[in-house]
Amino acid sequence: MLQVGVIGTGMIGQDHIRRMSSVLAGVRVTAVADVDTTVAASVGARVGAPAFESGEALIADPSVDAVVVCSWGPTHEQYVLAAIAAGKPVFCEKPLATTQEACLRILEAEVAYGSRLVQVGYMRRYDDSYRALKKVLGTGQIGAPLMMHCAHRNASVPGFYEKEMAITDTAVHEIDMVRWMFDDEITAVRVLTPRRSSLGGELQDPLMLLFELASGVLVDVETSVNIRYGYDIRGEIVGEEGTASLGSLSPVHVRRSGLSADQVPADWRERFLRAYDVEFQEWIDALRSGGQPVGPSAWDGYAAAVVSDAGVHALRTGERAPVALVEKPKLYGVTGGVVA
Amino acid sequence: MLQVGVIGTGMIGQDHIRRMSSVLAGVRVTAVADVDTTVAASVGARVGAPAFESGEALIADPSVDAVVVCSWGPTHEQYVLAAIAAGKPVFCEKPLATTQEACLRILEAEVAYGSRLVQVGYMRRYDDSYRALKKVLGTGQIGAPLMMHCAHRNASVPGFYEKEMAITDTAVHEIDMVRWMFDDEITAVRVLTPRRSSLGGELQDPLMLLFELASGVLVDVETSVNIRYGYDIRGEIVGEEGTASLGSLSPVHVRRSGLSADQVPADWRERFLRAYDVEFQEWIDALRSGGQPVGPSAWDGYAAAVVSDAGVHALRTGERAPVALVEKPKLYGVTGGVVA
Amino acid sequence: MLQVGVIGTGMIGQDHIRRMSSVLAGVRVTAVADVDTTVAASVGARVGAPAFESGEALIADPSVDAVVVCSWGPTHEQYVLAAIAAGKPVFCEKPLATTQEACLRILEAEVAYGSRLVQVGYMRRYDDSYRALKKVLGTGQIGAPLMMHCAHRNASVPGFYEKEMAITDTAVHEIDMVRWMFDDEITAVRVLTPRRSSLGGELQDPLMLLFELASGVLVDVETSVNIRYGYDIRGEIVGEEGTASLGSLSPVHVRRSGLSADQVPADWRERFLRAYDVEFQEWIDALRSGGQPVGPSAWDGYAAAVVSDAGVHALRTGERAPVALVEKPKLYGVTGGVVA
Amino acid sequence: MLQVGVIGTGMIGQDHIRRMSSVLAGVRVTAVADVDTTVAASVGARVGAPAFESGEALIADPSVDAVVVCSWGPTHEQYVLAAIAAGKPVFCEKPLATTQEACLRILEAEVAYGSRLVQVGYMRRYDDSYRALKKVLGTGQIGAPLMMHCAHRNASVPGFYEKEMAITDTAVHEIDMVRWMFDDEITAVRVLTPRRSSLGGELQDPLMLLFELASGVLVDVETSVNIRYGYDIRGEIVGEEGTASLGSLSPVHVRRSGLSADQVPADWRERFLRAYDVEFQEWIDALRSGGQPVGPSAWDGYAAAVVSDAGVHALRTGERAPVALVEKPKLYGVTGGVVA
Repeated sequence: MLQVGVIGTGMIGQDHIRRMSSVLAGVRVTAVADVDTTVAASVGARVGAPAFESGEALIADPSVDAVVVCSWGPTHEQYVLAAIAAGKPVFCEKPLATTQEACLRILEAEVAYGSRLVQVGYMRRYDDSYRALKKVLGTGQIGAPLMMHCAHRNASVPGFYEKEMAITDTAVHEIDMVRWMFDDEITAVRVLTPRRSSLGGELQDPLMLLFELASGVLVDVETSVNIRYGYDIRGEIVGEEGTASLGSLSPVHVRRSGLSADQVPADWRERFLRAYDVEFQEWIDALRSGGQPVGPSAWDGYAAAVVSDAGVHALRTGERAPVALVEKPKLYGVTGGVVA
Repeated sequence: MLQVGVIGTGMIGQDHIRRMSSVLAGVRVTAVADVDTTVAASVGARVGAPAFESGEALIADPSVDAVVVCSWGPTHEQYVLAAIAAGKPVFCEKPLATTQEACLRILEAEVAYGSRLVQVGYMRRYDDSYRALKKVLGTGQIGAPLMMHCAHRNASVPGFYEKEMAITDTAVHEIDMVRWMFDDEITAVRVLTPRRSSLGGELQDPLMLLFELASGVLVDVETSVNIRYGYDIRGEIVGEEGTASLGSLSPVHVRRSGLSADQVPADWRERFLRAYDVEFQEWIDALRSGGQPVGPSAWDGYAAAVVSDAGVHALRTGERAPVALVEKPKLYGVTGGVVA
Repeated sequence: MLQVGVIGTGMIGQDHIRRMSSVLAGVRVTAVADVDTTVAASVGARVGAPAFESGEALIADPSVDAVVVCSWGPTHEQYVLAAIAAGKPVFCEKPLATTQEACLRILEAEVAYGSRLVQVGYMRRYDDSYRALKKVLGTGQIGAPLMMHCAHRNASVPGFYEKEMAITDTAVHEIDMVRWMFDDEITAVRVLTPRRSSLGGELQDPLMLLFELASGVLVDVETSVNIRYGYDIRGEIVGEEGTASLGSLSPVHVRRSGLSADQVPADWRERFLRAYDVEFQEWIDALRSGGQPVGPSAWDGYAAAVVSDAGVHALRTGERAPVALVEKPKLYGVTGGVVA
Repeated sequence: MLQVGVIGTGMIGQDHIRRMSSVLAGVRVTAVADVDTTVAASVGARVGAPAFESGEALIADPSVDAVVVCSWGPTHEQYVLAAIAAGKPVFCEKPLATTQEACLRILEAEVAYGSRLVQVGYMRRYDDSYRALKKVLGTGQIGAPLMMHCAHRNASVPGFYEKEMAITDTAVHEIDMVRWMFDDEITAVRVLTPRRSSLGGELQDPLMLLFELASGVLVDVETSVNIRYGYDIRGEIVGEEGTASLGSLSPVHVRRSGLSADQVPADWRERFLRAYDVEFQEWIDALRSGGQPVGPSAWDGYAAAVVSDAGVHALRTGERAPVALVEKPKLYGVTGGVVA
């Protein structure tokens, strides 16, 4: 039974606690902490986990085998560094940290430690459809990949959502997915601004992002965050001899009122619920069997931050923004060469 | 933590043990038993569960809160009756028992006990698509249901598969699903025999089953058990104002070689894997919270047996076979009236 | 330029006149006739065709190379026989005649004449989708056919529509299509009556028809004539190794309001408009090149009448009704043996 | 009966002659001409049309009401100008002329003439799916359009196909379609070069084109001209509240070998055959009823040339290329404002 301490007991923290308590096997939440200690105490009480006065205290406690960080983004760095210092595996919700410099510090700490402790919460890698897509790509049945067309559509976004969050919060999922899908790095970003939706208030919505990969693969991503009709995630890889796309996953098809219709999910919870479960179960299974985490690494968290920054720059300037990563530490393996 | 004893450690028993050990939350396998004690010992050892010399001994043991019966069909009755006698919840893989008389004996024992202990393993009720279908039906958006078209197709069946198993083993899933979907009883069965597939050896394959429900809804079921192309489960409810069907669930769509194609699952494991997980998790959750099981009941197991017998009779005679159920004990609630 | 005389200038006659005047190549309407001579004169005037006082006079006129019969059903026999007597090709809208005896008289007259003059207006044989389906069947890629599932759904039907018209007017299209698709004869019919739609007034709607073919292929046809959501024609052939279905033909796909939807045609005009054009163009082309018509023959019209009668009998009695055809005259070729 | 003279009796000319002789209503080919007079004579003989020694002679002949130009591109200008000079309607296959200067000269000649005589052969405007898409857009059900995603894929291209033809021959169809779909002008073009397909020899294939419209709508077009799997034309308009896409038009759906598959057309003939028929029939109908042609105008031919040139420039430089059109003559109406 893996004993997990959860730092941050807000909405997402509570969801992960529920998951580890009543959905997944082999795990128990044994400690919680939050800047709001009242909330922490109340959430912890529900699963019989004591609330600690600080994340650091939680990390230090012997009842905690592994740490899950769901706190406010700017605090991620300190907790992840503390977990590394304690030699404890840490699952950090995205982003790994809020600046690329902070990500680099984590990278360096982990490299100094000498083996992987950090996993970042990019859950699309655990989605059945994306995995099936990657598998088809690997079989070579569509030939070498040349392009990928993506769309990331939200029915709506909250009032605090700002223009650049279309890149840093929304498209960042595609940034990680694309790097993983093609086992490659993004080398440059362009951002184009189509006609603005009148439903998005002051937002520049939609956006068209263009990613160049080292292999030459070109990826376009439409972000539409006020499109009303639902949450729609699409992806089609164009290969030399064919294409492969995410399937349509409507559980039911209705013929009614002149239409023959599939259902569109309402939001990301509905679409990616299972991916979160799988993400955590695989993390738990890897740790319980004594191994290192194999999911998105600190390197992946760092790369996402750098590409994301380049995207914001491209949006502001209207120009193509090159992406400059530091040399990849050996700890994180060799990129590329997998898909012919 | 629910402590479960598993009787029968063959293929399906092992799969449920794996499920309860490494997939689901809140459950532990604490005892196993099998007619082959060597297998039982070896399977039990993997999860640290002692092997008992008999199912009865397992049921009696205080380390067992609830029983899962996965043994050979003809032994189901004795274990289920023993569990009832011990006042312990019992999950019995389908069929509940191999004759309707045996099912009746279980029914009577449970009624005498006074509350529900028995759940039967009809897992389609836990499938996302069937649940979405039932939900659409419940909204009234397609109007009152009038017909349902089903297909149950297997790529192939093993050598020991006999003609009547198309009803007792294959279509029995539709029998349970239809009763649950419409909250209604099947009152008569017809079986028609189309042209015989040359790929099915001596089998009469495919079959066309026609079920009449008390409400008048007519259900047709094609069973094709050697259709080569994959495992395909389809269902479309025809309502007064529209229809609702199971969705196509291919995780990926490939355009290649002149085709634009979804994938078809290879077998029932691929198609219904998640339904088994959900089925058990909900059973575990119900028992842990101190409630009775709410899944398919002994009544459902009995009704499936009676309809199945009528189907076999209809196949042999070529005639319409009426279905005669005993009066439904109050323990199992009132059927019908839900869908207007 | 083929010169055609049209008998019957009601709605369907006017539509065919429009078709031959402004859509198709190589044809001209040179004569019209109708029991309502005022209408005939007015319709004829639009295309410069004189109105004759009777169908017989029209048939006799040298300006008429070929005849199209669109008059009231009970008058079909007399005009078709008159055309045969005059040795002129005649295209007769369905039904060929209103009784099987009348169909037989036409058959005999044509056989006595010695070559084909008659074509009956079963236009599904000219639909792209049905043709593609037949072509797939012919390639053998799904193996020998064993079953076919059909649905014939209308949004609504006019007030004069009676119970038996679900067979004689609606399912008669499937009767012809199935005979053509499998190059086989229907040998028996069953009709089952599901729960009745409350939207169909006094009608018994829907119906479930079951056709047995000489080869053993079993065909089920759902007729739903008040289903509100649109006009939906579906067909899936179940073969030994796979299935082939009519495609979904929505020209546009809309994602909106939580749905990802294809459009359903409003009625048969929208769905089969092109099939009517192709049907007539091929008939015209065959006649212009000096050949005999190759579309649905008097035999096909006769067979449809007999099967239709058997269907009505089956509906009334609730029993399986065998279909008894006279021996097929050599003029109409040999049935069967095409699909292995 | 419209009497048409056809200049250019190569493959496409022959196809249009076949169309006007045996498919369409109200038209007759009464004259042909070709630089290869032997071919012209032979092709003309098949339909009883005399071959003229020159296009100019054909245009001048009183047997010719209207002219169809299917000759080699560089000769289009002279024949179109000659037809305008003769005051005869002329249907010119794309391109209108091979330089924007030549297009301008045609524009000026037609403006001087004072009413529309010229139609250019952009047939996508006549395709059922594109028309349905434009209709959906017009209803406002997806809100104001913001983006459009297009793909134009060919299984293969002939050996003489050169890099820039991906714009001038392939994407030019999207250039015209987009201008028509949104009733708007393209104001700038970008061309990006993804990883090169190894199946395209020396070609830079695929390409990613980005068109900016005056309204701000952003259009992306993937051209892949060696993709092997078939001919695939896709388009999705992203509106404020939903999206609308071209439908999937497979006439038949096959389940076989683990796949559930639609068919992909082999080439543009199969995909757009009907659009050519409709294009010509509507042109013929407009002329026969004494009206002007309403299809793609000389202005559309000119605009396509200018955008195409900008695209080639963008491909060569890697930069965003602005599109500069002359002021639009009143003869061609007012652009824009239709879609809110």
